[in-house]
Amino acid sequence: MFVLGIDPGLTRCGYGCVEAARGAERAVAAGVVTTDPAARLPLRLAELRQELVALVAELRPDAVVVERVLFQTNARTAMAVGQASGLALCTAAEAGVPVAQYSANEVKLAVAGYGAATKHQVQRMVAELLGLSAPPRPPDTADALALAICHVATSRLQARLAAAGPKR
Amino acid sequence: MFVLGIDPGLTRCGYGCVEAARGAERAVAAGVVTTDPAARLPLRLAELRQELVALVAELRPDAVVVERVLFQTNARTAMAVGQASGLALCTAAEAGVPVAQYSANEVKLAVAGYGAATKHQVQRMVAELLGLSAPPRPPDTADALALAICHVATSRLQARLAAAGPKR
Repeated sequence: MFVLGIDPGLTRCGYGCVEAARGAERAVAAGVVTTDPAARLPLRLAELRQELVALVAELRPDAVVVERVLFQTNARTAMAVGQASGLALCTAAEAGVPVAQYSANEVKLAVAGYGAATKHQVQRMVAELLGLSAPPRPPDTADALALAICHVATSRLQARLAAAGPKR
Repeated sequence: MFVLGIDPGLTRCGYGCVEAARGAERAVAAGVVTTDPAARLPLRLAELRQELVALVAELRPDAVVVERVLFQTNARTAMAVGQASGLALCTAAEAGVPVAQYSANEVKLAVAGYGAATKHQVQRMVAELLGLSAPPRPPDTADALALAICHVATSRLQARLAAAGPKR
């Protein structure tokens, strides 16, 4: 299973693709899509969308995971993040790829076992879980990989619960 | 000149196209794109985008005008509005159509001559300016037409200023 995590943003949009097989995860691809803050907003959005379409076509993920952003936490950049997340969700749906969303707290809980973990703790756990010698850089990349790991863990749990059958 | 105004929203996205010629405006098309609130978010966004792409292809506007939303004013629906506005801006840019954005206050000022005009006052002025016997319904439609009118007025002013030449 290929899971593509997307940490939505307009100036920097992190992505990370994780392959999950036989209980182990490995990073398949990770990076950051950037757009020029000096360019006009509609052109930046079109450029971001073009990159997202290309990523989904290239990686052919089985699921796309986009962070669910709560606006209260960062009002200044909220509009740009909302617009970028809309493009990511739409692009996945148009490609026929199932989409999942998790909040930052859900990701921390799944990856670091602690909903109030620091960014640094999450990044170290991402490296640990993916067998990397150091936390992935830049941080947007680690956040995107964390989203993918969160979805793998959640899917695995759901599969186990389903296999266990109904409660007696 | 055809100007397509878009009042971004996910459950209801208003649109209105105004033709400006020889100092008079008339409504060419107006309506509301709706998506099912019970459907999954990515599918709703993909559906909205499909409708926006079709609108731009059909109306071939010379400019697309999207309301610039300030998140502070409506935090509850802010995410959906941000996502919808991102799709509208991106769709226009991909079609090669110039995009303008105005805040609600700028629109009120341009259409009703008063930045603190009520929604009802703006809707009546939209009807007046477009020679309609009653304010366009539903209100999302009137808001979108008001955006288009605002852009026509702004463009006309800029053209006059340019024709007047540099200040001496």
